[in-house]
Amino acid sequence: MTLTPTRQDKFTFGLWTVGNRGRDPFGECVRPPLDPVTSVHRLAELGAYGVNFHDNDLVPIDATAAERDRIVGDFRRALESTGMKVPMATTNLFTEPVFKDGAFTSHDPQVRAYALQKTMRAMDLGVELGARTYVFWGGREGAEVDAAKDSVEAIRRFRDAIDFLCEYALDQKYSLRFALEAKPNEPRGDIYFPTTAAYLAFIPTLAHPEMVGVNPEFAHEQMAGLNFVHAVAQAIEAGKLFHIDLNDQKPGRFDQDLRFGSESIKAQFFLVKLLEESGYDGPRHFDAHAYRTEDAEGVWDFACGCMRTYLLLKAKAQQFAAHAEIQALLAEIRGSAERDERYSRARAEAVKAQTFDRAALANRRLEYERLDQLVIDLLLGA
Amino acid sequence: MTLTPTRQDKFTFGLWTVGNRGRDPFGECVRPPLDPVTSVHRLAELGAYGVNFHDNDLVPIDATAAERDRIVGDFRRALESTGMKVPMATTNLFTEPVFKDGAFTSHDPQVRAYALQKTMRAMDLGVELGARTYVFWGGREGAEVDAAKDSVEAIRRFRDAIDFLCEYALDQKYSLRFALEAKPNEPRGDIYFPTTAAYLAFIPTLAHPEMVGVNPEFAHEQMAGLNFVHAVAQAIEAGKLFHIDLNDQKPGRFDQDLRFGSESIKAQFFLVKLLEESGYDGPRHFDAHAYRTEDAEGVWDFACGCMRTYLLLKAKAQQFAAHAEIQALLAEIRGSAERDERYSRARAEAVKAQTFDRAALANRRLEYERLDQLVIDLLLGA
Amino acid sequence: MTLTPTRQDKFTFGLWTVGNRGRDPFGECVRPPLDPVTSVHRLAELGAYGVNFHDNDLVPIDATAAERDRIVGDFRRALESTGMKVPMATTNLFTEPVFKDGAFTSHDPQVRAYALQKTMRAMDLGVELGARTYVFWGGREGAEVDAAKDSVEAIRRFRDAIDFLCEYALDQKYSLRFALEAKPNEPRGDIYFPTTAAYLAFIPTLAHPEMVGVNPEFAHEQMAGLNFVHAVAQAIEAGKLFHIDLNDQKPGRFDQDLRFGSESIKAQFFLVKLLEESGYDGPRHFDAHAYRTEDAEGVWDFACGCMRTYLLLKAKAQQFAAHAEIQALLAEIRGSAERDERYSRARAEAVKAQTFDRAALANRRLEYERLDQLVIDLLLGA
Amino acid sequence: MTLTPTRQDKFTFGLWTVGNRGRDPFGECVRPPLDPVTSVHRLAELGAYGVNFHDNDLVPIDATAAERDRIVGDFRRALESTGMKVPMATTNLFTEPVFKDGAFTSHDPQVRAYALQKTMRAMDLGVELGARTYVFWGGREGAEVDAAKDSVEAIRRFRDAIDFLCEYALDQKYSLRFALEAKPNEPRGDIYFPTTAAYLAFIPTLAHPEMVGVNPEFAHEQMAGLNFVHAVAQAIEAGKLFHIDLNDQKPGRFDQDLRFGSESIKAQFFLVKLLEESGYDGPRHFDAHAYRTEDAEGVWDFACGCMRTYLLLKAKAQQFAAHAEIQALLAEIRGSAERDERYSRARAEAVKAQTFDRAALANRRLEYERLDQLVIDLLLGA
Repeated sequence: MTLTPTRQDKFTFGLWTVGNRGRDPFGECVRPPLDPVTSVHRLAELGAYGVNFHDNDLVPIDATAAERDRIVGDFRRALESTGMKVPMATTNLFTEPVFKDGAFTSHDPQVRAYALQKTMRAMDLGVELGARTYVFWGGREGAEVDAAKDSVEAIRRFRDAIDFLCEYALDQKYSLRFALEAKPNEPRGDIYFPTTAAYLAFIPTLAHPEMVGVNPEFAHEQMAGLNFVHAVAQAIEAGKLFHIDLNDQKPGRFDQDLRFGSESIKAQFFLVKLLEESGYDGPRHFDAHAYRTEDAEGVWDFACGCMRTYLLLKAKAQQFAAHAEIQALLAEIRGSAERDERYSRARAEAVKAQTFDRAALANRRLEYERLDQLVIDLLLGA
Repeated sequence: MTLTPTRQDKFTFGLWTVGNRGRDPFGECVRPPLDPVTSVHRLAELGAYGVNFHDNDLVPIDATAAERDRIVGDFRRALESTGMKVPMATTNLFTEPVFKDGAFTSHDPQVRAYALQKTMRAMDLGVELGARTYVFWGGREGAEVDAAKDSVEAIRRFRDAIDFLCEYALDQKYSLRFALEAKPNEPRGDIYFPTTAAYLAFIPTLAHPEMVGVNPEFAHEQMAGLNFVHAVAQAIEAGKLFHIDLNDQKPGRFDQDLRFGSESIKAQFFLVKLLEESGYDGPRHFDAHAYRTEDAEGVWDFACGCMRTYLLLKAKAQQFAAHAEIQALLAEIRGSAERDERYSRARAEAVKAQTFDRAALANRRLEYERLDQLVIDLLLGA
Repeated sequence: MTLTPTRQDKFTFGLWTVGNRGRDPFGECVRPPLDPVTSVHRLAELGAYGVNFHDNDLVPIDATAAERDRIVGDFRRALESTGMKVPMATTNLFTEPVFKDGAFTSHDPQVRAYALQKTMRAMDLGVELGARTYVFWGGREGAEVDAAKDSVEAIRRFRDAIDFLCEYALDQKYSLRFALEAKPNEPRGDIYFPTTAAYLAFIPTLAHPEMVGVNPEFAHEQMAGLNFVHAVAQAIEAGKLFHIDLNDQKPGRFDQDLRFGSESIKAQFFLVKLLEESGYDGPRHFDAHAYRTEDAEGVWDFACGCMRTYLLLKAKAQQFAAHAEIQALLAEIRGSAERDERYSRARAEAVKAQTFDRAALANRRLEYERLDQLVIDLLLGA
Repeated sequence: MTLTPTRQDKFTFGLWTVGNRGRDPFGECVRPPLDPVTSVHRLAELGAYGVNFHDNDLVPIDATAAERDRIVGDFRRALESTGMKVPMATTNLFTEPVFKDGAFTSHDPQVRAYALQKTMRAMDLGVELGARTYVFWGGREGAEVDAAKDSVEAIRRFRDAIDFLCEYALDQKYSLRFALEAKPNEPRGDIYFPTTAAYLAFIPTLAHPEMVGVNPEFAHEQMAGLNFVHAVAQAIEAGKLFHIDLNDQKPGRFDQDLRFGSESIKAQFFLVKLLEESGYDGPRHFDAHAYRTEDAEGVWDFACGCMRTYLLLKAKAQQFAAHAEIQALLAEIRGSAERDERYSRARAEAVKAQTFDRAALANRRLEYERLDQLVIDLLLGA
């Protein structure tokens, strides 16, 4: 088991993650701005595969064309010299006051148009730098006052925007897939499409469902106390796991974006196991940030830790697969993977007429305590 | 505004709701068993429209054929004499030890077959008594030990079961629609399909998606702290609100099944408003129970309270619609409901080239505090 | 029932509440700075009794002595001309990076000393402007990394600081009482003394317990899903309710600081009822802020709403006390308020020998559903 | 590091834990009754130190005197033959319908008297079998309807009961200490004294505070999302950690009572570390139960797992203490443990006059990401 990250591990970081300056609702920035070029070089040295960005992580919202060109040129050269990729890009539709009541779901048609403009331009920028996945996180698409908005209409407006932008990508011949990212609340009291499943339900209603998948984020599902592994499993089963955001979080509180694997050890073991065994070959993207107590150097400890723990858990998943006692127990518990016979009238009649020994079936032993303890032993290296 | 329930209000109760005996994880039953026939008569007197049941609410699991016939006959006569309906039926796939590790998603093919048998028989019973909606709540379909089960496989097994039962209903020429009911946890550590949206995402993957919708329950979505009105709105927008379970709950704790409207006054006002204005014409089903401190008579206070508060909130929704100040404010806030222009290359180019005054757009006044206070005034009858 | 606030209602606001500029973790300020003098005048016009402040709400942290004097002079004149009071003051020990890992519980003795200095100076300022209550909210006293700190030692350090500052107040002959304010998390992963009760437990261990009480905040207790009315009741019973922070919040999420009474109608009714009936005669302080969607004018809608809903709920509490059916029911339910006989050997022997009819006692009717429905009716103005 | 439990580890189990029959709100018992004598023998073989019980775990509520004597005799012989201890006993004041609205806080003086009687008799039984700690968990002391009860009065009634029972213990010359156990909700909507801290606050108001401490339970604090280690630290600092209940739980949901260490690996590592390093020498009591999917044999897998993971985490705590890199980092982070100078006018003046370099203090490096990653490495055995 090697714990040194390599490009093959496909670890990526957002510019906003290592660049996070530690501002929070009760405190000012504690770290200086971090230049994107520096981020690329430092992350490359640490073994990352690539970086992702919101448009304004790279190019300030009020940059002139000349500034934009210089910034993008410098950034591109950093990518080229390091071999780092930009697998994903996204739009910042939440920081500016103009989006205070939403972007695609704003009441104001001018705000909606501006959000489209900003996204099209950001798609252009992302594609220019090689992105193949485009993420949508509708951080301001929500409400504190349910009287103010029509929540059915909000869904329609969001669909109109995604349909429009799919058409734009197709028209531009961009090889882009969209990945929708859910969150239950914060910064809005309630955000529309609060869970990954809400987007999985939304996608089949789009004009181009094949282009659109999900970008589940551990912390966001965890905020609502939901089992993230089950959510990712549903995305995988639907063929819609297009990207993933890895971090950590305690349930039932503000969005913490903790270092991957720093809190929910067991849940994240099952997550890594699922990802590695599912055939998912996209980026392992860390959407987290260093504690506010860290200084500028500590950010790289944070980044190393995310990758290291992923690799540790991946090695544990391999141990699990090779663990004779666990596998024997699972074989016994799970029995045959054969699918049940499909419906036929004869099958239905046979099932209806069958006699079942409820007590005998109920008494079947299921050694879950022993199995789970073996997992704990394995995790603790016992 | 009348607060006396009538049949037109379509209020229904489960036999298990008024029949709840007050047992909980730390205490024994406090109320005597309640005969289904009595429930029908008492609810009819109180103005309810109908009753719903799990198979074993009506017919004990070990009843002989003769006992079954007697029970069903008595129950049917009670329905006929009162004019009460059975709009919905469902299967108990959670009480018996045989289902201790799931029904349709059990590892054991015999348990899965037994669950199909039990459901087919319960569908027969439901249809016999007039049910047009059949609810599935997979209370034991879940896990405490994620090592033990393959959560992708669990989805497939659940799909196989629903597909099988759709075929059965079609084959039997039953006019039944299925409504899937989600819950995040309890009695399992984590239940598969934890939210209404998880089922909305699942339905399009079925063999007969047109037959299948959802049965959102307030308390279940509330347990995860999610906005129930937004979840119901997504179901409505998808044309999938087939049934609804009304009750109340504090977030982030055990399933309380409190009297409708007893806790979340504001959220339930918006729920009633949405239901009444959406054209939903199905039953308003109360899936709740009396406090464990109540005796047998108190159950009817509970039942009256559910209906009374629904009617109170419905009247408030009408006042909201007729409230000049609120409506003027909404007209100003919401502006035109016109849909945005669809994609065309020309439209995209025009939007990309447009100049937006971010500051001016950001400064648009949105009087949400005033609007929300008017709602509070309206709710408090100020 | 009058809904126009008067000085007698003792409504107060923090300068930071009406002055909140709408910045959040994902967005920039949306409202311009608000001058303290303007706040005093506007709040006075609306019927408030006073304003409270953190040192740096009034005097910027880097103000010169001359600037400080000018600001304080202007502020004092505004108070005098309006008759507004400053019943409470507090210290900002959380915004500046110097406090990134705590103030009184920092590892760094220099940071702890600086926190003492800042607090003593802020106490001087508060007393100068008339404050009689001094609040301590240890927003940065906590941890994300339990390995880093000794949580027993943290309690000792916090005690040392409070003891020191009590001595300072006594030495200065300040007529100040301290009120400790708890919060479970945010901005720290976990904050020490997470609940009001944690401070109630801490106070008896201080050198001057009689000087120190609590300042419970609705939103903070609600974040952990705890019953705020019960927490306030414990503070009242202990004679330690020295101040109170009123606002609103959905459980299990980021600190929302919503307009008082805008969300938890029922819980806040019982809170107002408890406060009004308990003899509490301190300020009713609103620690909340306007939605980020509001502009500068909307802030005053927010402020009016807080006071209006308090008065509405106070009127409801009076109706409750005068409601014949409710009071009759309560008389029946509650029975005698007589205290039980105290311990004596004879009493113990008598109780041990007594025969109880468990079934009869269990069957006593407790009409809580009916009572609770009467409360809902009363709240909805039915 | 040895993972085989011995008597010196002081592991105890409640009869109700291994005897849990797997009933839950939605399902019937799945396991047969377990005889207390068998529990004693099996637990002794596994290396436990003792067993604890509620009165009715051992002696059924309706047992005759002869039955009681036989049961107690058999139990005592099992204890003697195995060397097992009964360090703690408690009263069941929640299962029977008579306690449906509380025991010590019931409105009904007869119910309160019966609760006293039941507790005195259970104390007699506990002392007879050697118990030195007596636990009070007021599972029914709470409310769903805040209108029905006076929550200030409830505190007084609870105090009256505890004072009475302290006197009884003193009068009987029992060497008993009381340990109060908190829980936020379930089975009541809200339970009085919802957190360990609420009891820590209550204790100083008792007539015999020195006799009374707390029995914190991991799952109960975790239900409210509170940091259990911080709660235990406050109890230790106050000298009030008289007993402890170990189990596991996901936050924000029903009381799961999971196998110790099965879910919250990191939090429980810090808990074990705190207990072991604090000098706490009382029982390590497991208040948990096997998954409902287990059969009768699986219960012992569950019991072994609790003890094994405790020992694993204890070994990790020893590694932490011996880990050169961690200890070097801690020495750097924590600096001197010296207490700050106490108040004197001179000291206050000096601090007020001191000049602090805020920027320099803010820039101090705190390598918490690195430290926390070392903890993760240590936990994962990397």
